[in-house]
Amino acid sequence: MERLVRHFQEELDVLKTRLLEMGGLAEERVRHAVQSLADRDFGLIEAVLAGDEPVNQLHIEIDDRVLKLLALHQPVAADLRAVMAAVKINTDLERVADLAVNIAEAAKRYAQHPPVKKLIDIPRMTDIAQAMLRDALDAYVKGDVALAQHVLDEDDKLDALKTQIFRELLTFMLQDPTTIEPALDLILVSRHLERIGDHATNVAEDVIFMVSARDVRHHMPEADLERG
Amino acid sequence: MERLVRHFQEELDVLKTRLLEMGGLAEERVRHAVQSLADRDFGLIEAVLAGDEPVNQLHIEIDDRVLKLLALHQPVAADLRAVMAAVKINTDLERVADLAVNIAEAAKRYAQHPPVKKLIDIPRMTDIAQAMLRDALDAYVKGDVALAQHVLDEDDKLDALKTQIFRELLTFMLQDPTTIEPALDLILVSRHLERIGDHATNVAEDVIFMVSARDVRHHMPEADLERG
Repeated sequence: MERLVRHFQEELDVLKTRLLEMGGLAEERVRHAVQSLADRDFGLIEAVLAGDEPVNQLHIEIDDRVLKLLALHQPVAADLRAVMAAVKINTDLERVADLAVNIAEAAKRYAQHPPVKKLIDIPRMTDIAQAMLRDALDAYVKGDVALAQHVLDEDDKLDALKTQIFRELLTFMLQDPTTIEPALDLILVSRHLERIGDHATNVAEDVIFMVSARDVRHHMPEADLERG
Repeated sequence: MERLVRHFQEELDVLKTRLLEMGGLAEERVRHAVQSLADRDFGLIEAVLAGDEPVNQLHIEIDDRVLKLLALHQPVAADLRAVMAAVKINTDLERVADLAVNIAEAAKRYAQHPPVKKLIDIPRMTDIAQAMLRDALDAYVKGDVALAQHVLDEDDKLDALKTQIFRELLTFMLQDPTTIEPALDLILVSRHLERIGDHATNVAEDVIFMVSARDVRHHMPEADLERG
């Protein structure tokens, strides 16, 4: 029994390590996508567009590890919640990597036009979204509810920046119709970055549910529990 | 043993029924949101914005049922894959309901301006996305891989309509700057509908993985397996 328990913990640790790797890859793809947008770097754009295979492989591998872990060790209570959180986090990270592709697609269109403006708020949104993702994964590995709560709080900053970017670009579009098409792509990129923050929020919520007892989850303020 | 097995199947059937209910609710919310946009119906807009509690409750309940099912019955192989699919489908349906809120928010802004045009393609996208979602859930309940594959094929139609809507609205915006703001909201709505199709695609992929053996999944064409 003692041996089986230790074995489960070891397997769970491997699972967490793989999720961290996947988070690192997804984060890097987002960073490259935004960099390709800012630098109008076609080589980097194509690299992001073509480079999602490692993340997809990890996505399949992690799901596979979860199925084996559940079938072999049949965990319950907190252990089971940790494994279920891994399933959800795995999905969120795969979506984040998908959003890097969406950003690179926008970058490719954007580079066909003269730049609308120097990018300031989009790199800022990127930094915040990445930090949220990193903190959320860190909170998962450490079971750190306070850090998960911090991630939830950060989401407001992304939302404010998204609104600011929209207003600023709308002004450009109204003044000069030639900026409409490229400005639309910047607006879309800001939405993609907002969604990356949403995925970090999902991970943070999973962490809170994983660590807390079920009743705590049900008594949480609705806004923190369900983004719906 | 016989009794336990039957009990698991009964519990799984309840789980499937609840997922269908949730799918029905999510679909209805999307339909109402698009209707509120087309009819400029502020009452319906507010109803959609305020009405996500039933979906959130079901979301929590289904996750809870899954944890109990796994802890009590410790399913393996196909049964385990069916339960894991339920977890993922639950998340996808909650996101679909969230997107109804996003559409209603766009409807609220859109109704502040004169209508840009009569809506034709957005209702068409809505019909396709809803049918995809319904078929995907149907495929899950029946374990119907052919139907799941049909859902994956339908996604191209949504993509084509989204591109068509974008081009048409861009023309409006270039000709008349007063349409820029409301046209942007229609573009966003078309993106939200595309994402609903993406969630239906996720469900269909889960069904294919659930029914197929693992090796089949690994040999599937990448495009069908990973949307990345």
